[in-house]
Amino acid sequence: MAVGLGPMSTLHPVPGFELGIASAGIKRPGRKDIVVMRCAEGSTVAGVFTTNAFCAAPVILARKRFLGPVRYLLTNTGNANAGTGEPGLANATRTCAKLAELAGVPENAVLPYSTGVIGEPLPVEKIEAALPAALANLSVDNWADAAAGIMTTDTLPKGASRQFQHDGVTITVTGISKGAGMIKPNMATMLGYIATDAKVAQGVLQDLLRDASNKSFNRITIDGDTSTNDCCMLVATGQAALPEITAATGALFAALKQAVLDVSMELAQAIVRDGEGATKFVTVQVNGGATHQECLDVGYAVSHSPLIKTALFASDPNWGRILAAVGRAGVPDLDVSLIDVFLDDVAIASRGCRATSYTEDQGAKVMAQEEITIRIDLGRGTCSETIWTTDLSHEYVKINAEYRT
Amino acid sequence: MAVGLGPMSTLHPVPGFELGIASAGIKRPGRKDIVVMRCAEGSTVAGVFTTNAFCAAPVILARKRFLGPVRYLLTNTGNANAGTGEPGLANATRTCAKLAELAGVPENAVLPYSTGVIGEPLPVEKIEAALPAALANLSVDNWADAAAGIMTTDTLPKGASRQFQHDGVTITVTGISKGAGMIKPNMATMLGYIATDAKVAQGVLQDLLRDASNKSFNRITIDGDTSTNDCCMLVATGQAALPEITAATGALFAALKQAVLDVSMELAQAIVRDGEGATKFVTVQVNGGATHQECLDVGYAVSHSPLIKTALFASDPNWGRILAAVGRAGVPDLDVSLIDVFLDDVAIASRGCRATSYTEDQGAKVMAQEEITIRIDLGRGTCSETIWTTDLSHEYVKINAEYRT
Repeated sequence: MAVGLGPMSTLHPVPGFELGIASAGIKRPGRKDIVVMRCAEGSTVAGVFTTNAFCAAPVILARKRFLGPVRYLLTNTGNANAGTGEPGLANATRTCAKLAELAGVPENAVLPYSTGVIGEPLPVEKIEAALPAALANLSVDNWADAAAGIMTTDTLPKGASRQFQHDGVTITVTGISKGAGMIKPNMATMLGYIATDAKVAQGVLQDLLRDASNKSFNRITIDGDTSTNDCCMLVATGQAALPEITAATGALFAALKQAVLDVSMELAQAIVRDGEGATKFVTVQVNGGATHQECLDVGYAVSHSPLIKTALFASDPNWGRILAAVGRAGVPDLDVSLIDVFLDDVAIASRGCRATSYTEDQGAKVMAQEEITIRIDLGRGTCSETIWTTDLSHEYVKINAEYRT
Repeated sequence: MAVGLGPMSTLHPVPGFELGIASAGIKRPGRKDIVVMRCAEGSTVAGVFTTNAFCAAPVILARKRFLGPVRYLLTNTGNANAGTGEPGLANATRTCAKLAELAGVPENAVLPYSTGVIGEPLPVEKIEAALPAALANLSVDNWADAAAGIMTTDTLPKGASRQFQHDGVTITVTGISKGAGMIKPNMATMLGYIATDAKVAQGVLQDLLRDASNKSFNRITIDGDTSTNDCCMLVATGQAALPEITAATGALFAALKQAVLDVSMELAQAIVRDGEGATKFVTVQVNGGATHQECLDVGYAVSHSPLIKTALFASDPNWGRILAAVGRAGVPDLDVSLIDVFLDDVAIASRGCRATSYTEDQGAKVMAQEEITIRIDLGRGTCSETIWTTDLSHEYVKINAEYRT
């Protein structure tokens, strides 16, 4: 069902960052459900984590340890190790300790990540038993396999890669992500791993990741549910033969920043394209706001409205539902007589009412597309925000009603 | 599909309040889509209206006129006259003027109500042509027909009635409501009309209605979408042979207040029971909050979560999704280790983790019921709030994807 999401493009290896995949049989025998990532010594790591108060045990641990030094990232699917309290934290700690022991690194150098069903005990023995195979499989060429290995309800693996040159040296930024439901900013049931061979101090790396996340991963929503387990990590291995990149390194910094943003955006949009039951890829663009927050409030009211989402599924240009969602977004002193709404380039509402030029045919034509932009102009300022979302289909209900059965 | 919603009980006539039904052929020929209500001279009227900034033309007009004197309420279904701007307001005004002319009352004494598709021009001629038949049909015995006449996607008419005695005099409170989707507090695509033959000053009546609404209509949600057209009206005709009821009239005031609340609650819950595609009637009770607002925030996060709603549809006790929704509700400094969650009387989460006594069988048994209470104890205060909602089924998607076709 993924909308406009084809095979992954080439995922360039990142020197100093290896990936190993194995099968622990957590949910189904034979399924690849363990991914180990090894960072070269001296790597710096940035991370952004879920804002859900019920954050999972691995999130607690990863957040505590990521300032480093970090050598391994350990991911399992099939079990989120969330809502598991102290025993869950002990289990996460134990799997990391086992990997540390096998790899000969300090326990603190291993960060855990889990995704899957909430509230079930982590199958520690199964995971531990699969670690030697994952370590034996480590290779810089395994990005595509790792993208498949972190999938849950995803229908396709998600990866993105960019390269740029500086002083004859190639810098690579490559990443993978997973997530298809329980997707709402800050963050989603989303795991993202991005690596670069640039050399970047942790503080600078953290700024790069936060900025890129706020424009990409934190601007997507499928169902408004924020997961307990979201993490996005950015690793800089420093293996490229270039000096350290800082905000003062001008063009080089700008190029890296753009590459990280491009990879983040492609990964984030891929999550929406593969949204549970998605048949549409919808860009909700809110312009003319007095504040960024009110643009976001309007954007999310539209993106989360089940009535708009079902109309999108039905390719029905029921623009009244868009006006209704804008009107309930809680924008203070909203003057509805200033609001324009467009479907792609078709003006459907102008100054708060149906546009006089508008015909149902024009609306129906845009709504029939797989990719649609809903553009709302509030006419009260200069702020803009963009959010990406999906429709609400029978398939979404089916997937989520049957997830555990 | 309505959950536990049987035939309406007897709707006692309210002296001084007559209802007339007619067919204007707005959406389908022959369908009853016009309801006129006549209030005896001297009636007082209270009203609560949608908070949606894009409120419909009839809402603007009704809100302006309801302080009275009011003689007629004119309702049409099939067209919401919302998102229609100045021409919409002119159309609403025109239909009221026509009814006023036919009935021989001042134009300001007629209040309009509309529900249906947003953004289409109101078919004024059709409505005007049906008014004489509606007036000819006026009778105090027409509550049940009127309940059917205001339906849109409702599958069953909704009505409730209470009587009580005082000094040998019977006081009646009877009401009807409609609404099945786009339902979220303040208010929903909900129309409600309640009448009593008590004599009550407008200010007192308004307090009674506001209080009852905040415990009933403003605590229900189906899909989180707030309509442009919601109104709930409470009319006091003063025909009962009793002195005026004020807050100082003790037991009599308390009895009327309770009757208005009972009728409001039954009407509000009927809307949820008949929620679009509903297969479950779900009570979300949040206790132990530090503030009422945080109880509401948690209650709505749970009630609106598509993941919880689909799990309810599937009768799947996926309690992890409940924890996740509580965690993302935005409660400041939430200590998850204090939180208990129950499905009816079954403890599913205790102190933030799976309850040790809990078994899937226990949860599955409750989830298989048509009526389920999700009880959340935040363990941080003494405030409580209750919200009523439904599951999210295939039928909901079907109804809303096909509404206009």
